[in-house]
Formats: sequence, C-alpha cells, structure tokens
Amino acid sequence: MNHRIEDIERQRLAALLKAEKINDLLATLKEMPTVEVADFISEQDETTMVWLLSLFEPQQQAFIFTDFDEELQLKIIKSLDRKELAILVTNMHSDERADLYQNMSIEDQNNLLPYVPKNIRENILQLSSYPESSAGASMSSDFATVTINMTLKEALDQIRKDAPTKETIYYIYVVDEDKKLLGFVTLKGIILASPTETIGNIIHEDIVQCNVYDDQETVAKQIEKYDLIAIPVVNNENQLVGIVTHDDALDIMREENTEDIQKFGGSEAFDEPYMDLPFFKMIRKRGGWLTVLFLSEMLTATAMGYFEKEIARAVVLALFVPLIMSSGGNSGSQAATLIIRAMALGEISLKMWWKVLRREIMSGLVLGSLLGIIGFLRIFLWSRFSDLYGPHYILIGMTVGFSLLGIVSWGTIIGSMLPLVLKRLGFDPAASSAPFVATLVDVTGLIIYFSIAILILNGTLL
Amino acid sequence: MNHRIEDIERQRLAALLKAEKINDLLATLKEMPTVEVADFISEQDETTMVWLLSLFEPQQQAFIFTDFDEELQLKIIKSLDRKELAILVTNMHSDERADLYQNMSIEDQNNLLPYVPKNIRENILQLSSYPESSAGASMSSDFATVTINMTLKEALDQIRKDAPTKETIYYIYVVDEDKKLLGFVTLKGIILASPTETIGNIIHEDIVQCNVYDDQETVAKQIEKYDLIAIPVVNNENQLVGIVTHDDALDIMREENTEDIQKFGGSEAFDEPYMDLPFFKMIRKRGGWLTVLFLSEMLTATAMGYFEKEIARAVVLALFVPLIMSSGGNSGSQAATLIIRAMALGEISLKMWWKVLRREIMSGLVLGSLLGIIGFLRIFLWSRFSDLYGPHYILIGMTVGFSLLGIVSWGTIIGSMLPLVLKRLGFDPAASSAPFVATLVDVTGLIIYFSIAILILNGTLL
Repeated sequence: MNHRIEDIERQRLAALLKAEKINDLLATLKEMPTVEVADFISEQDETTMVWLLSLFEPQQQAFIFTDFDEELQLKIIKSLDRKELAILVTNMHSDERADLYQNMSIEDQNNLLPYVPKNIRENILQLSSYPESSAGASMSSDFATVTINMTLKEALDQIRKDAPTKETIYYIYVVDEDKKLLGFVTLKGIILASPTETIGNIIHEDIVQCNVYDDQETVAKQIEKYDLIAIPVVNNENQLVGIVTHDDALDIMREENTEDIQKFGGSEAFDEPYMDLPFFKMIRKRGGWLTVLFLSEMLTATAMGYFEKEIARAVVLALFVPLIMSSGGNSGSQAATLIIRAMALGEISLKMWWKVLRREIMSGLVLGSLLGIIGFLRIFLWSRFSDLYGPHYILIGMTVGFSLLGIVSWGTIIGSMLPLVLKRLGFDPAASSAPFVATLVDVTGLIIYFSIAILILNGTLL
Repeated sequence: MNHRIEDIERQRLAALLKAEKINDLLATLKEMPTVEVADFISEQDETTMVWLLSLFEPQQQAFIFTDFDEELQLKIIKSLDRKELAILVTNMHSDERADLYQNMSIEDQNNLLPYVPKNIRENILQLSSYPESSAGASMSSDFATVTINMTLKEALDQIRKDAPTKETIYYIYVVDEDKKLLGFVTLKGIILASPTETIGNIIHEDIVQCNVYDDQETVAKQIEKYDLIAIPVVNNENQLVGIVTHDDALDIMREENTEDIQKFGGSEAFDEPYMDLPFFKMIRKRGGWLTVLFLSEMLTATAMGYFEKEIARAVVLALFVPLIMSSGGNSGSQAATLIIRAMALGEISLKMWWKVLRREIMSGLVLGSLLGIIGFLRIFLWSRFSDLYGPHYILIGMTVGFSLLGIVSWGTIIGSMLPLVLKRLGFDPAASSAPFVATLVDVTGLIIYFSIAILILNGTLL
C-alpha cells in the first residue's frame, strides 16, 4: 500500500469513527493488514483503544496487540481485567507472549500466570528461561510437525487442522516419537508430490538447524545464508523445541547492527529507542565511555608536558598539534570501521591478519604521503605570503609532512589491527570504537610528531 | 547443520573426490543444501569445478552457480562454451541472472545474448534496465499468478505446474487480463479452504505493494514491517512486474547497513568486499574524505595562529589542547551516531528536532560538567605534587574545566543536529561521519578554549 492511499484511508477511518459508523469501520479494518490496524488504533485515546480492540475476534485481537509497541502493550494490559488478559495472552504467538511476559512487572507477571491455562503457563516460563540474545529467547514454539510414516494426504489433513495456531506451515518438521528432529518437508513439496507418497519419500534429512543456546546473530546469519523461511531450534538432546522465522532474522539483524553502530560511536548499546531511554540511564551509557576515553586522553597532557621546553622554544610547533592529531584519529577510525564491518560480514577472519596488515600498511603509506605532501605544500605556499612560520618554514614544512606520513600510517595500522586483537582476546571487535582508536593514536601521535621535530629542527629552532 | 558435522562431511566429500567415487560423491552432494555444495565445489581447482558442476541437472547447476560469489561466477562462465552458458543462464532465477549479466563485460554480454531464447533475452534486458538500488533492480520476475475466477482446484493445478520455475509459491498474485494487480492469496489460504471455492472468495485485496522505482531500502522496510515472505512490485500502470522476497530483504538491509557504517567511519561506501576492492580504488574511496577533512582541519592551524601570542606567554595552555579537542570530538561523534541510527530506524523524524535538541543540550551540559569536574580535579590534585602548572594552577584548572563544559556541550549539540540538518537539505544523514563532526567541533573548540583562557587568565598568566 503506498502512502497516498494510506493517508486517504486513515482519514476515512477517522471519519467513520467520529460518526460512530462502527460496522463500516470494522469492515474496513478487517480488510487491512494487522500492523495498519494497530497503527490506527494506537492513535486513539486509551478508552477508545481498548474498546476498538474488543470489537475483534480474540485471535485478531492478539495479532493487533502484538503489533503495538512495547510501551503501549504494557499500558493496555493494565486496562484489561484478568480474564481478558488471559484470553489475549493465550491467543498470542508464543515468542511474542514470552517477550511481553518478560517486559511485565513482577507483580503483573504474578497476577497473570494463575489465570492462563497450564500448558500456556509452562510455555511462557519455558521460553522466558533462555539467556538474552540466544536462539531460545527469540524462537517461537508454534511450529508444525509430522511423522515420517504419514502419507502426504494424512500430513496435509494434520497441517490443515494445526494451521491456525502455527507461525508458518510452509516448512513442516519431521520428528520421531521422542520429538527428535529427523528433517523437514516443505508445503511446496507436499503439494507437488502425489498424496499417496509418504513423508519419508520427500523428507530433507540434511537440515540446517541451530541449538537453543546459539547466539541469535549466528541464527540470523544461517537464515540469511540458506535463504530460509524458518530455522528449527533443537535442545541438547536434538529435540525440536522451536523455530526462528525469516521476520525474526530481520529484527535480529537490525538489533545487532544498531548495537554495533552505537558501540562504534563510543557509547554502550542502548537496547531501547533513543527517545524512550530514560535520561539518566542514557547519560550512564554515554558518560561511562566518555569518561574512560577522557582519562586515557589525559595522557596527551602528560606527553605534551614532556615537550614543554620544545614548545616554549618553538611555539610554531604547537600550532600544528590539532591538525596532526586529528589526521591520525581520522585515518585510524576509518581503518577500524572498514575492518570491523568486514569482520561482521565474514569477509575477514583472524587467520587473515597478515594479509590485512600488509594491505593497511600500504594504505597508510599512500594516504600518509598524500596528506604529508598537502601539509608541506600548505606551509611552503603560505610562507610566500606571510612570515607566520618564520625563516625556517621549509624545515617546519618537512617536520609536519613527515609527521603526517608517520601518524597516518600509524593510525591506519592501529585502527585496522585493534579489532582483530580484540576479537583474538575474546572481546567484541565493535568495541574498538572511533573515539577509542583516536585516543590510542593521539598519545603516540604526539610523541611521533615531537620526535620528528627534534630530529629535523635540532640546531635551528630547537 | 552445525559446524562439527560440516567439517566431518567436508573431509568425507574430499576423500570421495580423491578416490574418484563419483556416484557416492554425487549422491551425498545431492542431499546437501545447494549453498554447501557451492562451498565445496568452489574449493576445488577450476577444471574440477566445471566438471563437478556438469554432473548436476541443468536446474541444479544453475542454483549451485547462483551460490558462488560474483568473482567465481565470472571466472566459470569463461570456461563454458556458448551453448552451456546459455543453458545455465536460462535456468537461473531472473533476478540472479540479471545481476550476473550486469557484472559481465560488454563483450561477454554480446556473446551471450544471441544464444539464449528470445523471452529470456528480453527478460534480462528488462530487469537490467532499472536504476541501481531500485526495487526493479532487486526484483525477480519468477512469481506465480492466478486469475480471480479460478476455483481453488484450478488454481492449485496451475500452481503445481508453475512451481518449479517460481521463486515462491507461498504467495500467489491475482492479476486481471492486463496483468494489473488485484490482490494476493496465500498457499495456506488455498489449502485451508474448500477446493470448490474461487480465488475471489479468499483474495486479500488490501495488498502491500511497491513501485519498480521505489528505493530498495524502502522495499526492505515494508517487508520487515509487514512480516512478508515477498512483496509485489508494480509499474506505473499498476501491472505486476516482479516480486522482492524475504531473503532479498536481508541482503538489502545488510548492504545498506554496510554503506551507512562505512560512511560513518569517514570513507565512501565500498560496494565490494574489503579484500576484493582493487587497492587504488580503495585508496580513492578513503583518500577523498581524508583529504577533505584534512583541508578543513587546517583551519585549526589558522585558529591556533591567532592565539600564538597567548601560547607563547602561557605554554601551559598548549598542553591541554589535545585533551580538550578530543573531548569535543568524542562527545560529538557519540551524539551523531546515536541520532543517525535512531533516524535510520525511524525513531526520530525531522519534526522532532526540537525535542532532540532539548535532550542533547541537557546531555551535553551533564556530560560536560562531568568531564569538566574530572579535568579540574586532575589539575588541582596534580599540582599538590608537581609545579608543572605553576602558581596559578587553580585558574588553569578552572580554564580547562569550563572549556570542557563548553566544548562537550557544543560537540553534543553539533553532533546531534548535523544529521538532522543534512537530512533537511536532502543529503544522507550518515554522511555526518565521526571524523566530519570531530573536524567541525575541533576548530570551534579551540576558539572556545582560548576565549575562556583569555577571560579567566587575563591579568595573571595572559
């Protein structure tokens, strides 16, 4: 649906609601995708929301409710009585239900559990028991299964019966009497074969699967690699306990990318939308890293202290400190980003460190020469028109030029190797953020600059 | 398949190949997912690769070939004669085929076209004609259609017939005689209803769709929002011309995230894996931005030049320049990352600029105070043990402290507002990279620092 139609529809819906033409309104809403219905309902006041929701069948109510954002979900469950809440929760998909449960206050959790059927209660507690960011935490237990001896006709009958409560019936999993996963069949495979064949004839036994404790990012990558609609999740006994679906993979990838980007910007991962995160929680996530970086960056003041005499003798040296430092920082964070991303995409592995280093040393030398030459020319040409840099401007130009070559090369090497080192030590490579790399390069950069200055200017300015 | 099994399987396959047990090898390979087969084949030498590939049915060959990376695909087509190549290309999915075609040299393209059937040739040229990054460029034309008057039995018969060449038969599109899109039905819907009903009875008419010229990122976001297996793509006459599937959405999202991250690190988007990009092409992509930043950063030398007299009089001021600059840069790039990501996720829109600004001014003041106090204490405490900072250390501490407050606030404001301003001007917000923000903040930061220094130290050190 394109945006123009959407706006017109929205106005029409608002008009129907205002005119209290409830039957027309409901008929229109029932034709729309649930996420659009959820959008529309969530724009109303709370009483209207709860009332509109109550007009739908319990199953539809649950789907619409699932499309509300977390905050709104928690608000709405407060307006429902225990019985209504139990019905709603019972009709939700198992993964969404477990998420909701985990977002509820302990008080609300305790209020809810006694009112839902025993099997739902156990399912909620089971799915809530897996560690955060594991396959178990993102999986749904609403998968369709068949057994290997069924004919395709029998299988199809069972799938028809089960379909309304399943997340997908396009992949159907074949399990034995112990629930152990044997393979899978596709609905397409069933449709294409003769109804008298058995599941055993069309089963795919070489199945891509994951363990309930696998990291969710690994799971999303499997779904991506094999172009799956869903991936089965097994426990340590190889029993099928859940599925992670293609739409979960998109959510997981978006979440992981957000974390990487936030870390890379020198902040802890937010875990919540920017606007929703309480102010002081946000300050803690941002302030922590900024403070660590600040404390490390204090070393620059110490390093500069060592060269105080040189600066006093040739103040002109101080003028280029910001330029030199920032060039090292920029080239370092550029290299770090490229390598972190290439690692996340699986283009670079630890084993390739030497290839990467070689390529980055070359890059550093070329980029450093480029900036070094520009820096030298700037000072050389400027000195034709001004005597800001005094009579030794060529030597100063050389100092700045060679320092840039050294610092850009150094920044590039540090920036590219730090993510690999962090990975090797078992840390998240994305923690080698732009600010972190810049800080590392700053201190060493100053030492490089002043050492080259002493070497070149010794006997003239120094 | 978990990694342990994968390795064992790989060794077994290699052993079978070495022992020339071709039937056993082929039997094993045919059970495996094509992407695993492609992995195995791509590890062999070129002659073996082409020979192994030739053992499969044409359809399977095309699927395995599709799973090779771009470089290998281009290498292999050189080893095939024109007829083999034409068969391979004819059997590929339309979107993969068009991608291959676009990656081929003009000479290879001209060699290929006369040998493929007319309808395939037209299809290739059609799909290759859409602008890069548009829905048209990522769509496949292998979708299943039915007409509205068919009974479900007739529809199912047609789907069975069409299935082998279609990317998905789980969503089937309903079109009229002009190919105009009327709606869609799901295979699930067909299976669940009685075979004597008509498509018209179960059609979903309120369909989520996109235009061939829509940006691929928008399309991927629609797939994500509505949890779709595929989204139909129509031309300006509302005729169905293609579908973009859930696995394309994952690829698009990964590609767009990579671009954002690379830009954010202060580099142009690479468009190719890190290791595959030719060295000098990479240098161009990295050197361009580094040079622009370097030229802007030269303003710091100019700014420092204005305060040369102050530095000469109080060299101690120069010692804190790196610390102060980096704090502004760090807080700026932190704020920029958070805002860019929140915009990409749709959490923040331009309309909310004032809310964001208010929140960031508060953040800047709190974070700035934090660093300012630490900075002051560092100088204050250090001076108990050393007289590096001379008798006016309290005034110097105050200069540094207030400068940090000012610069961190300023960095935070610039960092958070720049992405919004770029967006408003029609640029990509991700272009407000960490280095770009740092550079902007550096020059202004120096001016803030020295102005505060003159204010506080006037009459003592200055």
